[in-house]
Amino acid sequence: MTKTTSPSWMPQQGRADRHATAAGDPDADVHEWLADWRRQAGMRVDVVPLAGLRGWRQDAETGVLAHQSGRFFRVEGLSVDMPGAAVPRWDQPVLHQPEVGILGLLARHDGDTLRVLVQAKAEPGNQEGHQFAPTVQATRSNWTGVHGGRPVPFLHHFRNPDPRRVLVDVRQSEHGSWFLRKRNRNMVVLTDEDIVPPPGFRWLTIAQLHRLLRHDDLVNMDIRTVLSCLPAELTARAALPGRDAFTAALHRSCQPGWGGRHTTAELLHWISDARSRTEVGADRTALRGQAAWHLGEVSLRHDSGLFFEVIGVDVDAEGREVASWSQPMLRPCGQGVVAFLATRIDGVLHVLAHARVEAGFVDVVELAPTVQCTPATLAYLPAAARPPFLDQVLDAPPERVRFRAILSEEGGRLYRARSSYLIVETDDVDLETGQYRWVSLHQLSELLRHSNYVNVSARSLIACLRGLLDAN
Amino acid sequence: MTKTTSPSWMPQQGRADRHATAAGDPDADVHEWLADWRRQAGMRVDVVPLAGLRGWRQDAETGVLAHQSGRFFRVEGLSVDMPGAAVPRWDQPVLHQPEVGILGLLARHDGDTLRVLVQAKAEPGNQEGHQFAPTVQATRSNWTGVHGGRPVPFLHHFRNPDPRRVLVDVRQSEHGSWFLRKRNRNMVVLTDEDIVPPPGFRWLTIAQLHRLLRHDDLVNMDIRTVLSCLPAELTARAALPGRDAFTAALHRSCQPGWGGRHTTAELLHWISDARSRTEVGADRTALRGQAAWHLGEVSLRHDSGLFFEVIGVDVDAEGREVASWSQPMLRPCGQGVVAFLATRIDGVLHVLAHARVEAGFVDVVELAPTVQCTPATLAYLPAAARPPFLDQVLDAPPERVRFRAILSEEGGRLYRARSSYLIVETDDVDLETGQYRWVSLHQLSELLRHSNYVNVSARSLIACLRGLLDAN
Repeated sequence: MTKTTSPSWMPQQGRADRHATAAGDPDADVHEWLADWRRQAGMRVDVVPLAGLRGWRQDAETGVLAHQSGRFFRVEGLSVDMPGAAVPRWDQPVLHQPEVGILGLLARHDGDTLRVLVQAKAEPGNQEGHQFAPTVQATRSNWTGVHGGRPVPFLHHFRNPDPRRVLVDVRQSEHGSWFLRKRNRNMVVLTDEDIVPPPGFRWLTIAQLHRLLRHDDLVNMDIRTVLSCLPAELTARAALPGRDAFTAALHRSCQPGWGGRHTTAELLHWISDARSRTEVGADRTALRGQAAWHLGEVSLRHDSGLFFEVIGVDVDAEGREVASWSQPMLRPCGQGVVAFLATRIDGVLHVLAHARVEAGFVDVVELAPTVQCTPATLAYLPAAARPPFLDQVLDAPPERVRFRAILSEEGGRLYRARSSYLIVETDDVDLETGQYRWVSLHQLSELLRHSNYVNVSARSLIACLRGLLDAN
Repeated sequence: MTKTTSPSWMPQQGRADRHATAAGDPDADVHEWLADWRRQAGMRVDVVPLAGLRGWRQDAETGVLAHQSGRFFRVEGLSVDMPGAAVPRWDQPVLHQPEVGILGLLARHDGDTLRVLVQAKAEPGNQEGHQFAPTVQATRSNWTGVHGGRPVPFLHHFRNPDPRRVLVDVRQSEHGSWFLRKRNRNMVVLTDEDIVPPPGFRWLTIAQLHRLLRHDDLVNMDIRTVLSCLPAELTARAALPGRDAFTAALHRSCQPGWGGRHTTAELLHWISDARSRTEVGADRTALRGQAAWHLGEVSLRHDSGLFFEVIGVDVDAEGREVASWSQPMLRPCGQGVVAFLATRIDGVLHVLAHARVEAGFVDVVELAPTVQCTPATLAYLPAAARPPFLDQVLDAPPERVRFRAILSEEGGRLYRARSSYLIVETDDVDLETGQYRWVSLHQLSELLRHSNYVNVSARSLIACLRGLLDAN
């Protein structure tokens, strides 16, 4: 068995220049700060065979991979039944992580401005090393010290906060095609303390974060989902209604006072109906013997070479709770496309939400972007699996594309998982079918106070869309 | 194997007289109507051995009981891990019914009065035969005709309703100690149609239903849970603020305009926190070989004779989609106690909600009554399992008991399951601990728009408490 060293993102010259910004950019120092971290604090990630991964054991009979502590996560099999779906039945590997982590953002009012404490955090799966991350990003195994590492900075702010200072506290799902019922606790907690950021931490305004979102691979998934859970009117408070009709419609969409195409009661009925019409069976199974999946010494992959593979990595890191470890990771085969169609209805911007079924969801259906897929897999799947609005999104004229960036998915479990995030404006309001509804941002915000309503891809896009209120 | 015939509630003289009401009772004709159904339409229920139950097969190896169609429900084993709980680990049988049924109530505005179409429905587990039930009470297996029976009346009103006429549509849990993640879809749909009720159906006002709730075993669990999901202000709209301070505080508690001890954001934070602190493992297992449970020819029971047993029944019924069938049922050993402590805070009535963990919940914790237990089991359990406010409820002076009735749990799966439902007023506001919070009725109503927040026992009590606004 030879070690395969992937092109890692050890300190490299020039990489940071990709994000070089124009002179006079108000965020130039922020870009420079992150670029410094990317240059200084390296993390070496080597792709290694799954078999014999340090600290992990593979069950001889089932092939299930588990950490020797019994904590962190497991790679198991999932047998899925979805009668009536384009693919009504399949087997797949799945990441099973029952414990709930904390994604915590510390916030502070500075006059009318809301500032949040972010960190420059490297993850083994990240495309570009360090990205902007929440103040705290830790699984229970992290903070209970299962790995014997250092304590998690700022965690105490989220463990027993004054309830009146909690702006957000809601458990939200992660990718339901890769994780089985995984949830993270999204929190925003206000502080009055005059915290001087330690190395690797920095205060940013919400407006700054919004602007950073437009750059590829800069703002990580965890901070995007936490941002999306902030009340819409709070993130939009500082923004004046824009000069153009789109920005004005976007601003109205964030204010609870404005109506929507449907009442919230109608949306809740639509979601209940979708959940009740769909029967999903998702049973945990062995990894060995799954149809079309091959568990070898090196990796676990689909016979087509598509969907994803499970690989092993050895990680050497500076500045982490633990300096070196090994773990399995899920590597998606192909870049995703994640897009909302948006339109103005009575002067209020709406996005076309999809009532989407994913096998790993806790409650059958969550609201997803209009389009969420990996185009590379479509050739393999039946024609009915092609998302209805994909061509409309990919062929949109440039002036209708309101947002476009390539963003990274979570880098602690997912290896180089990236998607193209798009918001595409359309004048065609007449697109609703059984599984699609126009919803406003404040309606999504209301749903985001609760679990299981809005999936992680939609949450990222919501953060990006709201961010358009903060003009460059 | 001999058939054991239980005391069934075939047509019997005199039974109905138990609910005879005083002269001048505005609901005398309603009581008489139900009594007539109890006398006329019999249902014969014989307790029979589990082994060899007609239409059911038992897996030789695991002992799991399933219907030969693969539908309806299964009796399986559940292995529960609850680190830190009074009983941190146990095995138990569980009813597994993945399909979601409809509990549908057809409603009609008659001026300011809301009327609902109820049916007199017998269930094999019911104590007294017929009880008032929702317009539609059907599992998917019922309405898709798995049992080859007659179509379900009025079902079409709930299958594709005009979204603007849907007052309630939310999936709610059932008893999490007996069912694994069971949900029913609670619906209230408005109609303009001038429906003349067929035999066995009848229009009642909400006020009438509220008064009927105070009688033992008259209003079934399914209609109670649907009632509780109606917006609080809607059920209380017709009621004038009462003459006494308690009724006035109750009326305010139903109005969203009135404040509460905690903001809704604080309550959501409390619930997220409880869910995140508690790790519950609930794995489906075999029935055979469970510690302390004995699967015999006749029944499946705990060695202590406590908790519950799973029995078999043969049913002969008139007026049902199918005239005769056999099924397993869960028979609780002992009557339950279900109680809210209530108090007035700044003139608004609050109830003391318990963030309760049940192994069969979808999302770890739901809000439950202050006390929910089966006293008979407490002698067997460790002292720490004794509910903290049980004595306060059982020893309350009569004038502080605002509501008391013995109500039946769901009679389609549960055999003679009954609980004493109580609402006990207290002046002691200082009762909150980590797992208990004072909440108002409109806050509960807001949570009841969503799944997984309020358990079935609390929902029943909410319906009873609101019902106190409709004085006799």
